[in-house]
Parts: sequence; structure tokens; C-alpha cells
Amino acid sequence: MKEKPWAGRFSEKTDTSVEAFTSSIQVDKRLYVHDIEGSSAHARMLAKAGIITDDDAAALIQGLGEIKREIERGKFVFDDKLEDIHMHVESALTQKLPKIAAKLHTARSRNDQVAVDVRLYLKEQIQLIIGHLKSFRRVIVKLAKANLEVIMPGYTHLQRAQPVLLSHHLMAYYEMFSRDAERFKDGLKRVDVNPLGSAALAGTTYPIEREFTTEQLHFARMSGNSIDAVSDRDFIMEFLAAASICMVHFSRMSEELILWSSSEFAFIELPDAFATGSSIMPQKKNPDVPELIRGKTGRVFGNLMALLTIMKALPLAYNRDMQEDKEPLFDTVDTLKACLEISIKMLPKITVKAERMAQAAQGGFLNATDLADYLVTKGLPFRDAHGCAGKAVGYALGCGKELHELSLEEMRTFSNLIGEDVFPFLTLEKMIERRKSHGGTAGRNVAAAVKAAEKALSETES
Amino acid sequence: MKEKPWAGRFSEKTDTSVEAFTSSIQVDKRLYVHDIEGSSAHARMLAKAGIITDDDAAALIQGLGEIKREIERGKFVFDDKLEDIHMHVESALTQKLPKIAAKLHTARSRNDQVAVDVRLYLKEQIQLIIGHLKSFRRVIVKLAKANLEVIMPGYTHLQRAQPVLLSHHLMAYYEMFSRDAERFKDGLKRVDVNPLGSAALAGTTYPIEREFTTEQLHFARMSGNSIDAVSDRDFIMEFLAAASICMVHFSRMSEELILWSSSEFAFIELPDAFATGSSIMPQKKNPDVPELIRGKTGRVFGNLMALLTIMKALPLAYNRDMQEDKEPLFDTVDTLKACLEISIKMLPKITVKAERMAQAAQGGFLNATDLADYLVTKGLPFRDAHGCAGKAVGYALGCGKELHELSLEEMRTFSNLIGEDVFPFLTLEKMIERRKSHGGTAGRNVAAAVKAAEKALSETES
Amino acid sequence: MKEKPWAGRFSEKTDTSVEAFTSSIQVDKRLYVHDIEGSSAHARMLAKAGIITDDDAAALIQGLGEIKREIERGKFVFDDKLEDIHMHVESALTQKLPKIAAKLHTARSRNDQVAVDVRLYLKEQIQLIIGHLKSFRRVIVKLAKANLEVIMPGYTHLQRAQPVLLSHHLMAYYEMFSRDAERFKDGLKRVDVNPLGSAALAGTTYPIEREFTTEQLHFARMSGNSIDAVSDRDFIMEFLAAASICMVHFSRMSEELILWSSSEFAFIELPDAFATGSSIMPQKKNPDVPELIRGKTGRVFGNLMALLTIMKALPLAYNRDMQEDKEPLFDTVDTLKACLEISIKMLPKITVKAERMAQAAQGGFLNATDLADYLVTKGLPFRDAHGCAGKAVGYALGCGKELHELSLEEMRTFSNLIGEDVFPFLTLEKMIERRKSHGGTAGRNVAAAVKAAEKALSETES
Amino acid sequence: MKEKPWAGRFSEKTDTSVEAFTSSIQVDKRLYVHDIEGSSAHARMLAKAGIITDDDAAALIQGLGEIKREIERGKFVFDDKLEDIHMHVESALTQKLPKIAAKLHTARSRNDQVAVDVRLYLKEQIQLIIGHLKSFRRVIVKLAKANLEVIMPGYTHLQRAQPVLLSHHLMAYYEMFSRDAERFKDGLKRVDVNPLGSAALAGTTYPIEREFTTEQLHFARMSGNSIDAVSDRDFIMEFLAAASICMVHFSRMSEELILWSSSEFAFIELPDAFATGSSIMPQKKNPDVPELIRGKTGRVFGNLMALLTIMKALPLAYNRDMQEDKEPLFDTVDTLKACLEISIKMLPKITVKAERMAQAAQGGFLNATDLADYLVTKGLPFRDAHGCAGKAVGYALGCGKELHELSLEEMRTFSNLIGEDVFPFLTLEKMIERRKSHGGTAGRNVAAAVKAAEKALSETES
Repeated sequence: MKEKPWAGRFSEKTDTSVEAFTSSIQVDKRLYVHDIEGSSAHARMLAKAGIITDDDAAALIQGLGEIKREIERGKFVFDDKLEDIHMHVESALTQKLPKIAAKLHTARSRNDQVAVDVRLYLKEQIQLIIGHLKSFRRVIVKLAKANLEVIMPGYTHLQRAQPVLLSHHLMAYYEMFSRDAERFKDGLKRVDVNPLGSAALAGTTYPIEREFTTEQLHFARMSGNSIDAVSDRDFIMEFLAAASICMVHFSRMSEELILWSSSEFAFIELPDAFATGSSIMPQKKNPDVPELIRGKTGRVFGNLMALLTIMKALPLAYNRDMQEDKEPLFDTVDTLKACLEISIKMLPKITVKAERMAQAAQGGFLNATDLADYLVTKGLPFRDAHGCAGKAVGYALGCGKELHELSLEEMRTFSNLIGEDVFPFLTLEKMIERRKSHGGTAGRNVAAAVKAAEKALSETES
Repeated sequence: MKEKPWAGRFSEKTDTSVEAFTSSIQVDKRLYVHDIEGSSAHARMLAKAGIITDDDAAALIQGLGEIKREIERGKFVFDDKLEDIHMHVESALTQKLPKIAAKLHTARSRNDQVAVDVRLYLKEQIQLIIGHLKSFRRVIVKLAKANLEVIMPGYTHLQRAQPVLLSHHLMAYYEMFSRDAERFKDGLKRVDVNPLGSAALAGTTYPIEREFTTEQLHFARMSGNSIDAVSDRDFIMEFLAAASICMVHFSRMSEELILWSSSEFAFIELPDAFATGSSIMPQKKNPDVPELIRGKTGRVFGNLMALLTIMKALPLAYNRDMQEDKEPLFDTVDTLKACLEISIKMLPKITVKAERMAQAAQGGFLNATDLADYLVTKGLPFRDAHGCAGKAVGYALGCGKELHELSLEEMRTFSNLIGEDVFPFLTLEKMIERRKSHGGTAGRNVAAAVKAAEKALSETES
Repeated sequence: MKEKPWAGRFSEKTDTSVEAFTSSIQVDKRLYVHDIEGSSAHARMLAKAGIITDDDAAALIQGLGEIKREIERGKFVFDDKLEDIHMHVESALTQKLPKIAAKLHTARSRNDQVAVDVRLYLKEQIQLIIGHLKSFRRVIVKLAKANLEVIMPGYTHLQRAQPVLLSHHLMAYYEMFSRDAERFKDGLKRVDVNPLGSAALAGTTYPIEREFTTEQLHFARMSGNSIDAVSDRDFIMEFLAAASICMVHFSRMSEELILWSSSEFAFIELPDAFATGSSIMPQKKNPDVPELIRGKTGRVFGNLMALLTIMKALPLAYNRDMQEDKEPLFDTVDTLKACLEISIKMLPKITVKAERMAQAAQGGFLNATDLADYLVTKGLPFRDAHGCAGKAVGYALGCGKELHELSLEEMRTFSNLIGEDVFPFLTLEKMIERRKSHGGTAGRNVAAAVKAAEKALSETES
Repeated sequence: MKEKPWAGRFSEKTDTSVEAFTSSIQVDKRLYVHDIEGSSAHARMLAKAGIITDDDAAALIQGLGEIKREIERGKFVFDDKLEDIHMHVESALTQKLPKIAAKLHTARSRNDQVAVDVRLYLKEQIQLIIGHLKSFRRVIVKLAKANLEVIMPGYTHLQRAQPVLLSHHLMAYYEMFSRDAERFKDGLKRVDVNPLGSAALAGTTYPIEREFTTEQLHFARMSGNSIDAVSDRDFIMEFLAAASICMVHFSRMSEELILWSSSEFAFIELPDAFATGSSIMPQKKNPDVPELIRGKTGRVFGNLMALLTIMKALPLAYNRDMQEDKEPLFDTVDTLKACLEISIKMLPKITVKAERMAQAAQGGFLNATDLADYLVTKGLPFRDAHGCAGKAVGYALGCGKELHELSLEEMRTFSNLIGEDVFPFLTLEKMIERRKSHGGTAGRNVAAAVKAAEKALSETES
């Protein structure tokens, strides 16, 4: 097939620079499996509906299968002249079956064909990503369980705030990545729709059976409006948005791993196998993996912004601009999977420096809130208790001491409600233990959360 | 309350320029209803749990109610010194109830308070938006029904492609805005979560009853991890992403209304009451409303990008950067609601110029595909038929005729399979009628789609 | 003036919801000074060109002056019905001068009028911003000078890398903000262009004198193509891009101020007057100002994205979408100025903890590169020296020592090229002093850089 | 070189998944020319400064030259294990010159090396782009000149507004792309800076001569602060912003080419060689090239947003996140050049349908403004004249006539100032001719603008 399938009315050949400019084959060739899957289902349907013969359908399906194997074996030549994956497969099929290949294109258009391909692809990838998210959450939960009682400072404004369990902190990420999985699953409903049979934009005059291809391709349902079906890229935008939110979570976790790996925090050590050194500074051990994950947040946001921009103000139905949807999609899928895979490997190998964490939680007046709470238990209104604890902090700061290092006398200068029982009250362990409100950091809360997570992750559906 | 509630340890007063820079009251004062609602529920819970007395709770709730009424009557003074809505309410309450106001802040922090406020607000707003989307879809369906049989050219690449029914084209937008409603509804699940009781980040030491406030505030469930609860802004990002996709739809519809209002298309006329004129060109009637809607797409995309950027790489838990979440959120809610409201009013008043549409569908060889289909019914393979029809188009273009204006003899020079029956085959009505594949543009398909939509929209839940 | 100036051909009144939706007065009223300035220059020109009489011009200019003063005194009523600032001023002028006000609109349109207003406004604001940047750089240089010899660890990957002078680190920001000033100045060339006289889009039939208004309004030159002049918003996009890059610098500096204020780094202390406390945790001193600056990066990026989106694919010339340019512009101007102003105040009040910084620079093997360099001076190729120093670090890590705490014997196990002279070689001071390549951290380099900066900043033009 | 150059202190090998995740070689290999150029200059400098011998320098430079030729001949193996282009070149050099290759890395780091490479690359590319912009503007000017007197409707709000010359409309794009060239040239000043010698971040202890490499590499100047030099990516962000603005222009021009190619406008015809057809609709001739250009706007905006996100809030100096700068940069360079190249080819081949354009300009009351202007010449104030013309339009609309088709009697019902001389006044030619204000559409203005553009484009510098 040297001639373009649409060359009929054209008196001039396509300029080769135009072929290069408009070709998408280097990008969309990865859709070959889905293109062939879609075409095979279409062929079966055409036969079932009596539009082509069973023999023709069988020949087409066999030919498509051969092409698939050729591509898999690297024996297939890709060429900008043939624009996209659909034309490549069709051209190869025409060489194999010069008489009947053309019949495959009955009752469909590239517009619905590419929509089918991308939906099949994305459905598969989202399922993979949900699977990866499950594995990653398992890793998080395992790390939380292994460090159930490790105490660290909880931060707000990057200032030490109150002591928390490391496991509680980790379980915050479990919550985030669980929401991501949910969000991808919700979006999947809008991916899992069969557009095949919408043809160019208006439907087709052939007596096709869309229920049949829907079933064959394992789609949950079929599209209800042909114009919408070929001009809809919502499902990709929604995926990119969910991926962007997931990357926000990755960027936050990465930021913390980087901070914690610094000499100043020194809360963790990354495994040698997951860090790199410096070509000039022999002592360096750089947290390259979290840095790169944090950096990759940019490309995913950029991909989302790219597609939103592309789709803005396009009139219905298909416009060639929409060809530009694939690179942001593929790049996001690849990035997200790579970040998940490397994190699944890296996280279990992190060395937690529990002593350093606990030591940090001892400093910085993390028990100031509890001193206020103590005063409330003695009858002071909260705001007054807060002010009183604030003054004690100011005093202690001046002496270079922590609150629990003050003497009872010193303490009592701030409130004579304070007694000996204040000291046990202000230990890290007691402070953690007391925060037993639902969702709080008390050990038994976290243990229960871990158990619940383990249960959720062991279920098939999740 | 002249002194900051946290002033205890500070030896220097806040610089007034800092007060102005950090204050959010001009933005977040709109949360006053939700702030007071959240505080009232908190007060009731504190009493139920025995943390404060029933009398105190009653006084607090009454005081809060008075403040709400003062704000509603415009009798409340907002002041940058008091930072945010929470401090304003608390300060006013302290003036009313100097002895007990402070007790309200027991077992909570501004971090969980603001999270509650925004979630209550957004939940309400999303429900409103879903309601608006329902009204708007009703308007679309009504317009489709009123123009059920109007024929227009369907476009791809902004080139006339095949005739379609205007009603079918409109129903494509019905599909888009239905998906928007679904997407908002899915996101709502992740908004409808009660963070109250997470306190600053670690939970609280008081024996609070989170189930009770959850129920009082009509939340579907409560958050499971206190650190996550105060640092999570996913639900806003997800809303902004759904709003961005919805604005893509609005921008596409606007683009078409603008095109259709041009002298060149002249498919519709906007009502005088929804257009504006020119101060210099007396003849102008400008489609300002759709133009502005299309333009407002920019601000919603920008708001999404703003929040993604804000959240990128923030360590847990709360950081002050997160205060910047409200303007993009509020602006998006306002923009989306305004676009919906004005569209609900405008769309029914559009004058459809059915004749012009039909006339346009007669030109531009929209029956070329059908000529190819005709040849397929006579036994030619599709690709060959396509080439043959392409040549006929080329010939007709040269003569300045449409395909149906060629004589039978002329026709037969392209294929002798062509007979007299080709002419009735190529009428607009027949072309439309034949596209009866599910989702195709045939009249009875569209009628069924309209009916199904009416049914869906009449149900309470949708 | 109750009737719209363009109402001639309209048979129906504008819907009030449309007035509210399309009105921009709440946003663009801040342009009143520039609108009046532009109108006054226009009136003068019309008289000079003999299009109106001198008396009419004088009356118009006086009337405009009165309106300006009314607005300044808060005695002017703004109303959505009158769409925008241009209509407000015109309407007020018509009340004052019912006979001649209408003449002012000769030979211009709102399209060139709004372009003039925004250009006058932005030119003024950019000059202010460049001035602020100069003040801010002065503050940076002063802080560098005051801490010229303070040693801190330089970081890459947030890992301690090599010792540097704090002053050198600060001067890196001087470079960034200097580039920002340059970039704003370059962009200013494309703002400083007079579009007045382009009328609606095609120029005007009146014998206007554009050189005169250009001169009167102090524009550097006038636009060369009327269609471009009314549809160009490049100068705003370019400003938003320059502002975004400037905010990147602010976000990086803020990140460091936040890190350095943490207990873990403890390199600086923010002044009490520029930090806030916690309503629940009495010990907290939060770096709210840098956090908010960092957060505001999001809104500026969002504003840029908003305008790019708005302008994408708009056909020439003016489209109403372009009305949406003002909010992102104004918000960016306000944000940038606020960040500069607060930083100019805050930075001088930061307490530098020089001892902590130096102590941090002692730890973490920051002299490893220098040990390698030492070995190179003894004849080892760099890569081998690097490997050797790396092994020494590994060994020292194992013993819990720093390199300079190893004995000479221990040292010599890694290379027998090492002698006693290694120890003075590895002191912080020597390491800094040796880095005297141009742009390096050696004290005399930094002192020279500070002096050069002072000189540059003292010049009128910069 | 099997071992990592920084492996000294590591006890564990890099995980292969980490190598794949962190490797950038597939992206940055295109920098090989610049990497080798930079290294050669560095070698020459090291010899000049007496840090290495002349013989070593000669050997290094020869070895680098060989590697360059191997890469050019496709005989070079790229491998993820070797991370990036710098390591690849170094590794190959070590195989050639095992004894002396290591010396090349004296007094530099990958941090300044990559900065040099990217700056050399981008400088070259910006110069190419400026050249392309010049060629493209030549093409625009030529098309304007060839269609100097063609009349078309000028549009605002996509409504016909006033007649303009097509050449005037085209020259608006000349202005836009001229500003782009200026903007790129301004940005170039901030690219053309030599960072070499900044080493890892603090400068180097070797007596290097940065002026020498600056001169050798033809940089305009050298960086002044080593920390800034290795952490600065402003010049890339600025380039991406300028490219985004340029793509806004491309998207606007594309939108118009698409509109004008539609059956409804039919103002132009794209050459067959630059359009594509439909696989299902034989009559289609799709403006794929402008559609794709418009679509590619999205990826460039996305790239800008990606890099802004990446750089947000990174502490100084180098962080691995910054490796992610290259893909958005390279993709933007490639996209912009491709859009320019294809447009330079396509634009001259567009067929202008002058008759259709003129015919369109006859319809839609484009002379309404001029009727108002006519009345002003007869003494009516502008606003009154505008109202009067508006009523005439309303009346003519009702009769289905244009203004110039009304009889004098009809005309005079709107104002008895109207005389016979109104009819010649309202012809297209006169309307154009009268708009002779500077920058207006009068023929002699446009001819002058064309001549000025030709002159500007013929100068070497522009």
C-alpha cells in the first residue's frame, strides 16, 4: 500500500516534511497489541453481523495475529510515511491479504479505532498501577509494623510540634496512597467504555453489533453518542489529574526522605544500592532516587497541563490536535509506574535510626501542649493553660533547658496548680499513649490501623 | 482579645506588615457559617463527653449563633490583626463569654478546624454544582428535543464531514456534562470525611467522641489518621481537576456558539439580552458570554496548577503554604457556578437557524461517505469504494457541483455499479436515517437518547 | 447615561445576570488613574489635531480631573451595569458635560483604550518592582557583608558538600534577583509601547497625531500595526513569566529559611515579629512568612498558566476572553510586591547562629574533597585521589570520627603520600581560603563581589 | 571503567533498577558535541595554567576528538550503567588513555560540566531559532506583499468588524514573531554565561583561568558566583516561557488558517501536499498541519510548567531533581523548530481566495462605523452618530439589506445630515484608504510597513 488510503481527491502528494511532522508512529506504536485486539474483535463482529464472511474474518484474524508476532519479534518496519499504528497494521495486512484486508475497515474509522486502542491500553495500565499501589501500601504498612513503637517528633511548619509514632506518620502515607487507588478506580469507570462503531463521528450505516465487540473486548459498557465518543479525551485528563495528585504524595514523601537523610536530621539512612555518590566529593551519599521522584512531579503536572491546553476550545468532533494526547499519557504512565516500582524496592531497605528520632523528640519543647493539657486537668481553661505553658517555654529557652528539665519550683512560678505528677505526665511515652482519640497517635490506635490495613490489602478487591 | 492566643513565648509583637501579609480573613470569612457550625457541633460533643458542662455548651452555642447573625446582618468587623475566620469568631465569643469562650478550643486546633470548615463548605458547593449540572443538562435535552430533526453538518477538523442531527450534536454535550456530574460525585466521597478531633496533628488527649461530631455535621465518615487529616488537601485538588475538565467542556461548547454566531456560519443567533455591542462599531453583536466562559477556562486551569504547585513537596503535617488553598478553591467554585447559571439562562434563548444548517449540510460533499457505502452495497470492497468516491469528489469540485448534482452518466464514469437508486440514497434525510448503529445519529436513536436522558434527570439521584 | 453606548441595533435590554457576568468593574477600577491619564492625553491630541476645539479639550480634561478626585475621595459609585472603568468614567463625564463628553470617544475604541490603560499601569508597576528588587538586593548584600566570614556547610542534594561562606551563599541570591531585575527591564521594552489610535482594530479615519500622545504619555514608542496592537497581550504573559521565575527564587530562599529555622538545622532564628505561634502548641515559633512566600509561588505559576490558556488559539483581533487578563496580572503584581516588601523588612532581622553553622561544617566529612586535592598536590591523579579519600571516609564513618580526627597513621593506611601537613590543610578556614577561583567562596572573592554589588546598586540605573 | 567514579565509600553496588531509574543517557546523549567541546577547552586551560602538561592536554583533546567521531559514526555504545553523557565520554577516554584520562576531571565537577553543556547547546539552538524566525517573517512579509491590496473583513469577537487589508492582517503576525525574536535575543544574554570552574558548588582550589575557557567557548561572560552557577536553571525557564509565548502566536495563526480553510469561511485553500484526507470520508481535506501546530502549544506550555514545578523550593545548590530539566528543554527546542520549519514551507503555498474575502467584507455592515464617521464629518458628536448608525443597521437587518443598499430616502430617516456623498464614502476601498492613522490599514501604510520589514530582515543583525 504505497498510496494513502484517502488519496482519491488529492492531486498532489504529501510533502515528506509533512509526513514527518504529522506522523505519530514513533509514539503510538506501543498501542499495537490493542490495535490488533480491537481489529480482531471488529472482524469477528463483522462476520457475526453478516457484513463479511466467516472465512474472511478468519483470514483477517490470522493475518492480524501474524503481524502481532512480527512486531513482537522486532521484524516489523515502522515508517513515517504510514502515519500511525493503524495504517501500519492495515498496510501489512494488505500485503498479506490484498483482496480482503480492505474489508476490515468497513463500519469504522480511525477516529473510533484510536479511541478503542487508547481505552484498552489505559484500562490495562490503570489496573497495573492500582496493583502497584497495593504493593506499595503493603510495603508502607510493613515498615510501620516493624517500627510500631518508634517515637519521632511530629512537625508542623517544619517545627517540632508533638511526639508521634513513626508508624503513625508512615500510616498517613498509607491513607494518601489508598485514596490514590480509589481515585484511579473511580476514573476507570469512565475509561471502561467501548467507542467502537461510532465511525468517523455519526455512527455507521452497517448493521453492526456493538454489544458484541463490547463483550469481546471486555468493556463494561459502550458509548451512547457517536460524536462524543470520538471527541472525548476526558478519561485521559482525569487519569493525568489523578496521577498528578499521586505525584504530590510522592513528592511529599520524597521531601521527607531527603530531609531525614540529611546530616541535620539523620533520622534514616538510605541503602547504598539506592543512593549515588559524587564525582568530586568522596564523602557524599546522595538521595538521588527520592530527589528524582520529587523532580518527576514536574513532568506529570506538565503532562496534565499539556492535555488540558490541547483540549481547550476544540470544536466537535475529532481534531488533529488530539493526536498530541498520547505522549503526555504514555509519559505519565511510565513515570508513575517507575516511581512506584523503585519505591517498592527502596522503602523496605531504609535504615531507621530510632534513637536519633527519639532524641529529637526529647528536644524542642514537644511536651508544651501536654503541660497545657496537664493544667487543664487541674482546672485551668485551655487558653489560659496555653499561655502559661508558653511562658514556661520562654523561661526554659532562656536557661537552655527543656520543660522536663525544670525543677518543680521553677515550674510552679508559672502556675501553682503544678505538682510532682507533672513529670511522669510529660514523658514521650505517656504523651503518645494519651493521644488515643480515634485517628490519634497512641500505639494501640496505630496497631489497629496497621491490622485494618493488612486486612484491606489481603482482600482481592482493593 | 487583643493578644494573640499563642503569644506566650513571644517577646516581640507581630509586625503589622506581617499581620497584613499573613492574614487570610478577607478570603476565608466566607467560611463563617461552616466555622460556626463546626464549633457548635464541637461544643455539643465536649458536653456530651463530659469535658465541659451542658451549661457551658449551651452558652457557647448561643454565643456562636449570635455571632452568625451579626455577620449576616453586616454588623461584624473584620480586621487583619485577627488573622482568620477562626480567630474572629473566637475573639467575638470571648467578648461575649469571657469566662468560658476559651473552653471551646479544648481538644482541637486551627489545623483540624480549618479542615472541617473547608470540607463542610466544599461538600455543600459540590452538591450545588451537581444540581446546577442537572439543570443545565435539562436545558440541553430540552433544546435537543425542540430541534430533534434539524440537520446540520457534522465536522471533523472543522471540515464538514457527514450530516448529523443538531439534537445528536447537542446530546454529545449532555454526555460530557453527565460525566462531569459523575466525577464530582465520585470526588465528593473523599470530601465527605470528618477531620475534627485530629487536633494539631497527633490526635488529642481528651476523651472526645468523634462519631458524635461526624453524625452532627452529617459527614459520611471520619478520618483515620490524624497526621493525614490535617495535611490532606487532595479533595481540593481533585475538585479543581474535575472543574478543569468541566471547563474544557464549556470551552468547547463556547467555541461552537461563537463559531455558529459568526456571519460565516450563521447557524444560530444569540438573544440580544445575552450579547453586547461595540462602542465604535454600531453593527456588532458580540457573543460576549460564550467568549467569557471560554476565557474563564484559563483561570480554572490556573487554579489547579496553583494548588498542585503549593502542595508539591510539602513535608507533613500542616504548613502555612496550605493557607493559599482557599483562593483557588473559592474562585473555581464561583466561576463554575457562574458559568453554569448563565448558560442555563442563555441556552434556551438561542435562535436556531435550521435552514442555514441544512443548507450547509447540502454543500461540501457530505454524502461522499455514503456514495462509498452505496458502492459497498453493490459489492465493492470499502477501500476501493472510498477511492472511487474520492475521485468523484475531485471531479465534482472541478465542475463546481455537489455529488448529487452530477448526472447519472457522470456518476457512472467512476463506477458502472452506480444506478438511478443512488440519488435517493444520497439525500440528507436518508443519510441520517441510515446511521442507526447504537449511538449513531439516526432520528430514532436520538429520540431514544433524549427520552432516556429525561428519565435519568427526573430521578432524585442523578 | 442609562443606555449602553452600543445599544442602537439592539431590541432587547441586556439581562441583569449578563451584566453581572460580563462586568469587570470590580477588577479594573484600579486602572482609573491610567484611564483618565490616557483620556486626557487623547483629548489634548484631538484639540491639537483640530478634531475638537481647545475649549472642548479643556473642559474634558477638567471634567476628567474632577472624576479622578472623586474616585480618590471614595465618592464615586461603581456599578456592574456600567461594565468597566472606561464606561464609568465616560458616564460620569457625560453627566458633567452632556454636550461634549461624547466627543472624547472620537478616533478611539475601548479596544485601544484598555490596551493603553494596562500598559501605563504595568510600566509603572514594573518600575516599582525593579525598585523593590534593588532594595531587596541591598538588604541581601548588607547581610552578606555583616556575615562575611561566617562559615557554613554548602549543600548539594541537601547533603553537606563543602564548606562555604554564608556571605557567598547569600550572594548567590543576589545574582538571582539581579537577573530578575534585568529580565523585568528587558520585558519593559515590550510594555513601553503606545497602542492608542489603533481604534477598534483597523486604525482610524481621523487625522490623529499618535506621536503626540506617545510623547504625552511618556511611551518609548508607538505600535506599528493596529490589529496587533489591540490583540497583543504578550507583554503581560512575559511579565507573568518573569514573575514566575522570580517566585522560583523566592521559593528557594524561603525553603532555606524554613530549613534553617528548624531545630535540626538551627542556623538562624527569625525575629519574633515575623513569626507566629500555635494556638495549641505553646512552644512553636513558625516561619509563617517564608512559608507563605513559598506557597504564593503557586498562585503566580497559576496566573501565568491562566493567561497562556486564555490566549491560546484566539483568532485576531480582540476577543472578550482577553478581559480575563487583568486578574492574573493584578494578583501577580500584588503578590510580587508584597513578597518583596515583607522580605526587605524581614531579612535584616534574622539572627545568624554562626557557631551552629561552623559546627555543622565541621561534621559530615566536608574536607574529603580537600583530602583528595591534597593527594593531587602530592602527585596522585584526581580520580585515584578521589577513590582514596572515599575509602578514608568509609573508614572514619566506621569509627565515628571525622577525617581530621584520624591519626596520621590511620591516614597513611589510605596513601603513604599523606604527611603531617595534611592537618592544617584540612581546616575549614584553609579550605575556604583555597577556593579562590573566580566566583569561588574564598573570602577575598566574596568581599570583592560584595563591593561590586554595592557599587552597582548605588548607580541610578540598575 | 566498570566502577562508579564515586564508589569509594560505598559498600554495596548500585541496584540495577536504580541505574535504570536515575540514568539520563537516553536523553542527554544529544549533548555529546557540547560535552566534548567543553572538555577540550577545559583541557587546554589546565595545560595553559600549568595544572597538567601540554602533552597530556594534547592527548586528551585528541582522545575526545576520536570519541566524537565514534559517536557521529554510530559506533559508540550507550549504556544505562554509565548514567549520563559525561560518564560515557569519561569512560571511553579512560579506555583510550588509562593513565591520563582521570586528570581531565581536575578542577571541575559534573555540576558545572552539565551547566556548560546545556548552555552551549541552548545558545546554539536559540541562534538557530532566531534564524528560523527571520526566515518565517520573510515568508509572512512576502505573502503580505503579494496580497497587498486584498480586502477581507477584520474581526473582533469573531464578528466582522471593519474591512482590513489581508496584508495588514498578516503584518500583525510579523509583529508578533518579531517580538518573539527580540525576546529570545534578550534571553540569550542570560544563557551566554560560562559556569565552568564553579566545580561542585564552591569553586576550586586549582589555579584555573576562567577567562580562558570563557574565550575558548565563545561565551560573552563568566558566572560570578559558584553556588548560583551550578544551581541556576533560570535561562531554561526563560527560554521555555519565550517559547510558550511564541506558541501562543502559532496557535492563533493556526486557528485562523483552520477557520479560513473551512467551507464556511473559504478564504484560503491549503496546498494538497500540506493537508491530509480521511480514511472514511473521501471529500475531506483536513488542515492537519495547523491543527497539529495548535495542539503542540499544549506540550510547550506543559514543558514550562514542568520546569517551574521542578525548580520550586529547591534548596541550593545542585539537586538531582534538576536532571529533569533536559526533556522539557529538548522537546521544546524540537517542537518550536519543527513548527517553524513546516510553516516556512507551508505558508507560501496557501491559495488566497481574494474574491471570497472581499465578498465577505461586503456583508455584515462593516461600513457602519464609517457611516457614524460620515455623520461626525457632518457635525454630529461621535456617540450620537454611533447611535444613529446603529439604528440604520437595525433597520437594514430587518429588510435583509446592507447599509449601502439602502436608498438615500431610507438613509435620511435616520439623519437628515446624510447626502448623496454617503455612498462613495461607504465603499470598501474608501474605508480602507481612510484609515491612514499610523499603524492603520490604509494601503500606503501597509506598503510602508512591508518595506520597513524587508529592510529590517535584510540586515545581518535582526
